[in-house]
Amino acid sequence: MKKQITFLLLVLFIGHSYAQKVNTEDSLTIRNLYDMALLNGKSYDWLDHLSNEIGGRLSGSLEAQQAVEYTEAELKQLGLDKVWLQPVMVPKWTRGTKEYAYIETAPGVSTTTNICALGGSVATPALGLKAEVIEVQGLDDLKNYGREQIEGKIVFYNRPMQANLINTFEAYGGCVDQRYAGAAEAAKYGAVGVIVRSMNLRQDDLPHAGSMSYGDIPADQRIPACAISTNGANYLSSALGIKPDLKFYFKQNCKTFDDVKSYNVIGEITGSEHPDKYIVVGGHLDSWDLGDGSHDDGAGCVQSMEVLRLFKKINYKPKHSIRVVLFMNEENGLRGGRKYAEQAKLKNEQHIFALESDAGGFTPRGFSFDTDEANFAQIESWKPLFEPYLIHSFTRGGSGADIGPLKDENIVLAGLRPDSQRYFVHHHAANDTFDAINKRELELGGATMASLVYLIDKYGTKTATSDVKN
Amino acid sequence: MKKQITFLLLVLFIGHSYAQKVNTEDSLTIRNLYDMALLNGKSYDWLDHLSNEIGGRLSGSLEAQQAVEYTEAELKQLGLDKVWLQPVMVPKWTRGTKEYAYIETAPGVSTTTNICALGGSVATPALGLKAEVIEVQGLDDLKNYGREQIEGKIVFYNRPMQANLINTFEAYGGCVDQRYAGAAEAAKYGAVGVIVRSMNLRQDDLPHAGSMSYGDIPADQRIPACAISTNGANYLSSALGIKPDLKFYFKQNCKTFDDVKSYNVIGEITGSEHPDKYIVVGGHLDSWDLGDGSHDDGAGCVQSMEVLRLFKKINYKPKHSIRVVLFMNEENGLRGGRKYAEQAKLKNEQHIFALESDAGGFTPRGFSFDTDEANFAQIESWKPLFEPYLIHSFTRGGSGADIGPLKDENIVLAGLRPDSQRYFVHHHAANDTFDAINKRELELGGATMASLVYLIDKYGTKTATSDVKN
Repeated sequence: MKKQITFLLLVLFIGHSYAQKVNTEDSLTIRNLYDMALLNGKSYDWLDHLSNEIGGRLSGSLEAQQAVEYTEAELKQLGLDKVWLQPVMVPKWTRGTKEYAYIETAPGVSTTTNICALGGSVATPALGLKAEVIEVQGLDDLKNYGREQIEGKIVFYNRPMQANLINTFEAYGGCVDQRYAGAAEAAKYGAVGVIVRSMNLRQDDLPHAGSMSYGDIPADQRIPACAISTNGANYLSSALGIKPDLKFYFKQNCKTFDDVKSYNVIGEITGSEHPDKYIVVGGHLDSWDLGDGSHDDGAGCVQSMEVLRLFKKINYKPKHSIRVVLFMNEENGLRGGRKYAEQAKLKNEQHIFALESDAGGFTPRGFSFDTDEANFAQIESWKPLFEPYLIHSFTRGGSGADIGPLKDENIVLAGLRPDSQRYFVHHHAANDTFDAINKRELELGGATMASLVYLIDKYGTKTATSDVKN
Repeated sequence: MKKQITFLLLVLFIGHSYAQKVNTEDSLTIRNLYDMALLNGKSYDWLDHLSNEIGGRLSGSLEAQQAVEYTEAELKQLGLDKVWLQPVMVPKWTRGTKEYAYIETAPGVSTTTNICALGGSVATPALGLKAEVIEVQGLDDLKNYGREQIEGKIVFYNRPMQANLINTFEAYGGCVDQRYAGAAEAAKYGAVGVIVRSMNLRQDDLPHAGSMSYGDIPADQRIPACAISTNGANYLSSALGIKPDLKFYFKQNCKTFDDVKSYNVIGEITGSEHPDKYIVVGGHLDSWDLGDGSHDDGAGCVQSMEVLRLFKKINYKPKHSIRVVLFMNEENGLRGGRKYAEQAKLKNEQHIFALESDAGGFTPRGFSFDTDEANFAQIESWKPLFEPYLIHSFTRGGSGADIGPLKDENIVLAGLRPDSQRYFVHHHAANDTFDAINKRELELGGATMASLVYLIDKYGTKTATSDVKN
């Protein structure tokens, strides 16, 4: 009986603190944020412009500069306290003319296939490159074949993304080493080129771009690397089964130029109580060039802009200074993220929280937090506030590439986690376009981010000094 | 201190029962079901055939008959214990030639607009119908205007779906009375026709079909009803603001014929312990005719077929008899659902559980259960088993239209609840097509359904006699 009473008291206590957490003011503010986003949102129009009027925004490109100017101008119309550009030198790599490739099973018998140069790759010789192909299932496979079987050939990395992983980012994480390090590793065995199966869970004809690195391979030993579509990869693999000595031809004239000047775009609402303590919400303004970068990461940019717009619209005056940061050069350098963190450190700006949206403009499912137990426990106590919006997933893990360099013991890092099923259908490919964006899904993401930022601003974090005052 | 110990014990106790619930066999079986669905699923191929080889499957149409034959043949290949067709008489309504409509702001000055006849509507006169328009915000609005302002006019129902509702089915529920009962109500005030704003949260040019009813209005007083696209509705409303006496012209020659014979398609794995107790999993095989019915409800059909296929593939031998039922005529009559329930009652078949998928082939988020607290509590205790698959939402509420007639005190009814954000972009419109289906999202739905059916089969329900034996 006593046990039952203690249990009852405990239930009441839990019930009470639950009721405390779901306080009316918070509920109403969050409802207000969602209503504003869904009934009078601006993110979809912004993204329409970024995607359809500007297009793919590769670092160092004219489009990237246009995106800087456009978003700066739009932020200036929001009535923020400050809007500015933060200069940053970025790599400039250009794809050049459209790549061309074919599979030659006998002299004069060939089938064209869709490829694209990987970002950062060197060009092939001007007349292209033709060689035999050796198919491998990953980097580790190279040593199984050894230099004698690899030298003079094109290495074809064909390990597919694992379809039975529910979170598609895990499947990506399990394969992307082939793209990133495949050329550097294959070069060590004397390979003359690299073909990488596109990081795509769907079978289709689109090659998916993405960055690669030669690591410490000297310039004169670098070999060209391209991505092949999933259908193309399956075809090539089948053809190799029938005709192991077939040849693969590809031509690409991509090029790396000297670094050029670009910018992070920053807007700020200055905090009413802790103006010297910062909350960052952001995405990256650059994108790959094959599509228009709607999901990666136009969506994250306009959602981040929307967070500050929503605060102005509902007349919320944050305690902390809230910044939207549109980072430049996430895709092939992370220079913007590094520059922002470097400047923050130089100016001794204390950042208590940073949230990035860089996983597509799909229905938001929750957040991932890079933080300690105390902060995570506080954030988890807010879950009931998110229930009405079907935001269920609060996990500990990574956050976002651009905000990573801000990491220290005083900051909570977070990443928006939208539904991931369709992301890699579009990621870095020609179909990452505005028509693949659903307006409501995009808007729900912005409202979800705004709600979390509101709670963090109001209640502070457990690590930052500011929460003592709250 | 004592309190802390009690608390600790409680935590341990909860932890223990949690661990019990997530028993290894269940975890592994569910993992197995998801793996099979994602790595070797069949639902996407089935849907490809239903959508692209057959197409829209309006009750009584040739396509509906083809779908019956195709799915029966496919079920017969699965090695089920029984596959059969259950005859049912269904309404036969045909759209006839493509509808035509324009808005005439002055004699000879007109703009065409996209409409479609609502299912069950009568035709306009052969040369069409032209009349002034009165815009209303819903059925209640009619009495505000009264017969004198409505008589001889076309009533234009223009209350939009509410964009700030997170669950789009709620927004649909708040508007669909205009479509279903709009003509019957307007006829009582002497209206000559009805235009209904499409049930679509997106602004586009597609009219959305759907059923309507004349209730007890005599045949000679029935007035034609059509849906207008959301863009068309906005245009018409604006034009009415400028020119209140504009005229609307529309022509449609849809027609209702005598009922025709059709079928529910049923397959069964007979139960090993309780062969006379039934679990049903299903969707509806008929669809509207403008698209190919991929989301509504080809998806639900192939997911339901997949549940039984998965059980065979993982060699799971259910205790209860498990039936897949592909119901005919959900859209404009519910005859299939009623027939199935009627026959079940006649044969004294005890149904303990029925699950319907009829909310699109999008990423599954959870289930809604029409059941009592005891059953819901048991099902909620399984939530941890679904966590790895990001299935979070277990609510009490509705289930599915086709399984509704089975309701009695012994059955638990459930509906799969996928993400709802994109559903009404496609619902009953020309863009409910196979290209709007994501393979993974579809497959996740089937695996999620199979997992729940497995648990229900294994543990029984709290209402059914069978659970006593478990």
